[in-house]
Amino acid sequence: MSSNQRIFAVILAGGSGTRFWPASRRLRPKQLLPLGPAAPRSLIASTVERLSGLVEPEDVLIATGRHLVEATSAELPGLSSSAFLAEPQARNTAPCIAWAAALVCARDPEATVCVLPSDQHAENTSEFVRVLAKAADSAQEGIITTIGIVPTRPETGYGYIQKGKETSPGVNAVERFVEQPDRETAIQYLNSGEYLWNAGIFVFRAKDMLAAIERHLPDMAAQLEVLRASLGGPNEETAIERFFSECQSISIDYGVMEKEAQLSVVPGDFGWSDLGSWESAWELSKKDEQGNSAPQGTILVDARDNLVEDLRKQIKEEGTDTRLVALVGVEGLCVVQTDDALLIMPRERAQDVRQVVDELKASGRERLI
Amino acid sequence: MSSNQRIFAVILAGGSGTRFWPASRRLRPKQLLPLGPAAPRSLIASTVERLSGLVEPEDVLIATGRHLVEATSAELPGLSSSAFLAEPQARNTAPCIAWAAALVCARDPEATVCVLPSDQHAENTSEFVRVLAKAADSAQEGIITTIGIVPTRPETGYGYIQKGKETSPGVNAVERFVEQPDRETAIQYLNSGEYLWNAGIFVFRAKDMLAAIERHLPDMAAQLEVLRASLGGPNEETAIERFFSECQSISIDYGVMEKEAQLSVVPGDFGWSDLGSWESAWELSKKDEQGNSAPQGTILVDARDNLVEDLRKQIKEEGTDTRLVALVGVEGLCVVQTDDALLIMPRERAQDVRQVVDELKASGRERLI
Repeated sequence: MSSNQRIFAVILAGGSGTRFWPASRRLRPKQLLPLGPAAPRSLIASTVERLSGLVEPEDVLIATGRHLVEATSAELPGLSSSAFLAEPQARNTAPCIAWAAALVCARDPEATVCVLPSDQHAENTSEFVRVLAKAADSAQEGIITTIGIVPTRPETGYGYIQKGKETSPGVNAVERFVEQPDRETAIQYLNSGEYLWNAGIFVFRAKDMLAAIERHLPDMAAQLEVLRASLGGPNEETAIERFFSECQSISIDYGVMEKEAQLSVVPGDFGWSDLGSWESAWELSKKDEQGNSAPQGTILVDARDNLVEDLRKQIKEEGTDTRLVALVGVEGLCVVQTDDALLIMPRERAQDVRQVVDELKASGRERLI
Repeated sequence: MSSNQRIFAVILAGGSGTRFWPASRRLRPKQLLPLGPAAPRSLIASTVERLSGLVEPEDVLIATGRHLVEATSAELPGLSSSAFLAEPQARNTAPCIAWAAALVCARDPEATVCVLPSDQHAENTSEFVRVLAKAADSAQEGIITTIGIVPTRPETGYGYIQKGKETSPGVNAVERFVEQPDRETAIQYLNSGEYLWNAGIFVFRAKDMLAAIERHLPDMAAQLEVLRASLGGPNEETAIERFFSECQSISIDYGVMEKEAQLSVVPGDFGWSDLGSWESAWELSKKDEQGNSAPQGTILVDARDNLVEDLRKQIKEEGTDTRLVALVGVEGLCVVQTDDALLIMPRERAQDVRQVVDELKASGRERLI
């Protein structure tokens, strides 16, 4: 990594996933939860900490919904209030990345920007940092660079990146982005060694992203020009409001990456997980010899491969549990407690949590969503 | 039933069963819980109510441990404090039945006494009352009479009563009492039509029981004489204390019934259950079309044959639930919540709750026992 490079991080923290209900709620989305190995820290705090050494705290930006700023900043006490980019409305990823690129450009047009999801896990932090630094070096040559995760299974839930020829050691050209494949295709991808998972991690110089937006999203580029003119001025808030109300709702993948002629990808193999469900929370958790991940003191009689999560306020605040959980003769269950709800399901049904949320919506129990 | 008969009930409420943990505790044994169809009343309240029409409220006596009097009387607000026979220490059933018989004898030597467990269920109350009245008539002829439950399955967990010849319509001589049989024997018993379950329900004239105790437990009879002399006097408490500290700890079955030459049994078929575990609580509960017994508002997605019990204070006091339970894709589970514990196990493992209690004891968590 060139030593004079200044690297900003833009952490995308707008999600409102329902897959971690009852822990995740509208005002407490997944990235604010202490899931998997991040615990007792939240995923977003863990994400920020993972960048330390590569990104200075004052160069971390958090893009989140306006309604989430308070809860999010509470998880990141080391960041100043100016670190938070509060989106007035959800407009997918392209508008907020454009806004962030404009902000960074105003500070340092040559600076590198890493865009990262706020809710992922990387087991091997030093390898993660090495790969990200390599991507930053690649970006410094003027090529938007993504990180592609070396796949470990024929996953049908992710998009893939086909890599082309190696352009420098550890960096490949991007051949193409592909949508979530069917199982047969996913097996081919895995066996070919040519395909990587798209983890939504992009690295670029601020000015290169602004130029790419101008090329592929000219309307948004024009709207962004208005916003740029107001940055730091008395009308900044109004300009942000207007930008988000007028701009197209589109992802950076679809709006820019898939249209860009030249892109690079750095293959990464650092124990990545998108922590997509309670199932993967169990997979990543520390387990006892019987495969149970459960708070200390839990009584386990003939219980195997269970996940017991206690996210009640008392636990968070006092670190002690006065409510015992006892499992007898059960296997492969997720048991999740919050102050107002208790979920019990087999781990393999983890995707069906959304059915609970759907039913809560249908029956008007908004308090629990 | 002869209309001039006065019938007392002695309800045995000393149990401290662990089979309903986490609902049952040392100071909140099974009979104080609102289990099965008794809910929202406790089993003991339901037992007392079942006797109304046959026994006047002032003729109901509750034999319980001294430490349980407060909680028990709270469940029975219709009874006066003199209804409670507080045992200073647990001495099995014979001593407290002897004491109760002495008390009744002091009021009316000709009176009939029904001894009943406090924690059973009878589906058909009018049939239960009819059978009990028939047993009372039999007892009035000077023969200690028990009620034998017509068996519905080859149960190996109960003792049996073999019936002899019919001595009057609906009343049989008792041939013998037998211990819990193995499965093969239990099947023979069931098929023979000669055997009945011993439900621990005995009916007798007070004076006949005192005579029987004199015949079979002469030491206890002598100790009881001392107590009888103090009943109602200033030294009554001391005499009770002394009686319980000196007398033999023995069951009425073993100490009297099995030794008595002539006994009668009235076969009863009134939907009896001893409610022995969470499994039988589920069996007796009201269920939805998917076989789930759960509080209103519970979210059930592909869930079948589950029992969800919520015994938190809030539920009892306010009748409302602010803590939602959601079950997804689970079958045949017991889920029991109290203020300080949560139990999850397959119904078929219900007997293994005691393993949880054992582990709590072993780890010194007395608060939860």
